Amino acid sequence: MSNQNQTTLNRRGFLKNSGIALGAVSLATLANLSTSAKAAGVRVWPFGSRPLVRKGDVILFQGDSITDMGRSREKAALANNQEALGNGYAWFAGLELLVQKPKAGLTIYNRGVSGNKVFQLADRWQKDCLDLKPTLLSILIGVNDLWHTLNGNYNGTVEIYERDYNALLVRTRRALPKVKLVICEPFVLRCGVVNEKWFPAFDHYRAAAKRVAETHGALFIPFQAMFDRAIQYAPAKHFTADGVHPTDSGASLMAYNWLRAVTGGR
Amino acid sequence: MSNQNQTTLNRRGFLKNSGIALGAVSLATLANLSTSAKAAGVRVWPFGSRPLVRKGDVILFQGDSITDMGRSREKAALANNQEALGNGYAWFAGLELLVQKPKAGLTIYNRGVSGNKVFQLADRWQKDCLDLKPTLLSILIGVNDLWHTLNGNYNGTVEIYERDYNALLVRTRRALPKVKLVICEPFVLRCGVVNEKWFPAFDHYRAAAKRVAETHGALFIPFQAMFDRAIQYAPAKHFTADGVHPTDSGASLMAYNWLRAVTGGR
Repeated sequence: MSNQNQTTLNRRGFLKNSGIALGAVSLATLANLSTSAKAAGVRVWPFGSRPLVRKGDVILFQGDSITDMGRSREKAALANNQEALGNGYAWFAGLELLVQKPKAGLTIYNRGVSGNKVFQLADRWQKDCLDLKPTLLSILIGVNDLWHTLNGNYNGTVEIYERDYNALLVRTRRALPKVKLVICEPFVLRCGVVNEKWFPAFDHYRAAAKRVAETHGALFIPFQAMFDRAIQYAPAKHFTADGVHPTDSGASLMAYNWLRAVTGGR
Repeated sequence: MSNQNQTTLNRRGFLKNSGIALGAVSLATLANLSTSAKAAGVRVWPFGSRPLVRKGDVILFQGDSITDMGRSREKAALANNQEALGNGYAWFAGLELLVQKPKAGLTIYNRGVSGNKVFQLADRWQKDCLDLKPTLLSILIGVNDLWHTLNGNYNGTVEIYERDYNALLVRTRRALPKVKLVICEPFVLRCGVVNEKWFPAFDHYRAAAKRVAETHGALFIPFQAMFDRAIQYAPAKHFTADGVHPTDSGASLMAYNWLRAVTGGR
């Protein structure tokens, strides 16, 4: 489902459009972000026992094909609508929140795009994130950042992934200072297209996503550990057809774990 | 998926095999069951803030095709196994419990059988329930008890459904005095085979299931209200292909609501 045509985009497109000079985001600055966000009254992880999802939240799911899952482009502007939310974990999780909290006045969007890497999120961030003014932003990105290097369609590195991810969140916090952040761990299962060539590189992308979450005071959802447990009960292929894209069982399990985390049940 | 051949079973088969003279279970006796169970230290609803699922639980899902969902008969004796648990809400919910509570030592079985009505549960209750010694028993039964009368394959009534259901739980409590009970509300959505002929009769079956839950100190899971909310966000057919059998979206939503209830998150 990943659209590999998109991987030929010139990286300078991002640098020009992002509105951030990456050089200006030093490691020291990043290390202090979580602390300064806390001092400014911004909600950063750990959030204590209060659920992350609150009345009136505008929830945005962002990511690649795993988030996209066939969502309608025509109906994308409709909140709280199955066609707009697709058929993956974003729909399963969003639906359960809507059913569970009918009086919470939630507004739920999905803007995942198949094939995206983190720099491609940046390319469309103004219209597909900042303009929607989410109060809770959940991002799952990273598998293509490695996959597309393995199949020769991209020459990124884990350092570029982490740098771009950090820059994206610096930009997000500037535009939406109080946004609650959820960062989902990229995951793969050893089946389908996922072979030993993916390792240990893939583990470095997972570790980078976790560092990004810590830096920006985001709630981190450890999907890899979840799937590593799940495969005790069914073969890996039951959860991902190709090692990358979840089946309904996989998406459902992701949604449960996402929900438990954001509703305070973890 | 319901097996209508099974509907020709003679009801006297149940009366002979159940080991309970139905006449002996008077309404007055039933009304006092919950109170006397409580006095005997048996866990009855409401359970307070403690989650219903506890370490070491043997969890059994029982019901009809909605619970069955293609589970393997050959592997039925295997606990905590996808093929044995099928592809429906029992698998989705069971998997999430296993992943969420890896150290809880849970043992999870599914013994749903397509086409079953409540008297057919009774026919196989010894081997498919009592012999497994569940500590937490979840039952979803009732849609066929009405459906098979509408298509002319059964001549039961709501009174027979409620009487048989009560007798089944009296028998269960006698064999397993401390079993924790979960009774799931039967549900339908107005699409597929479900037309106006089903109403108001179906509502009476739902009400009967709720009374049975109250009588026996069971946790009641209101699936109909859940689905009635869900259809604000997608057409009914998105949740059940035929008005009766849940799709993956429907099964996933059922599993979330079941889980929230049994893990204390309701």
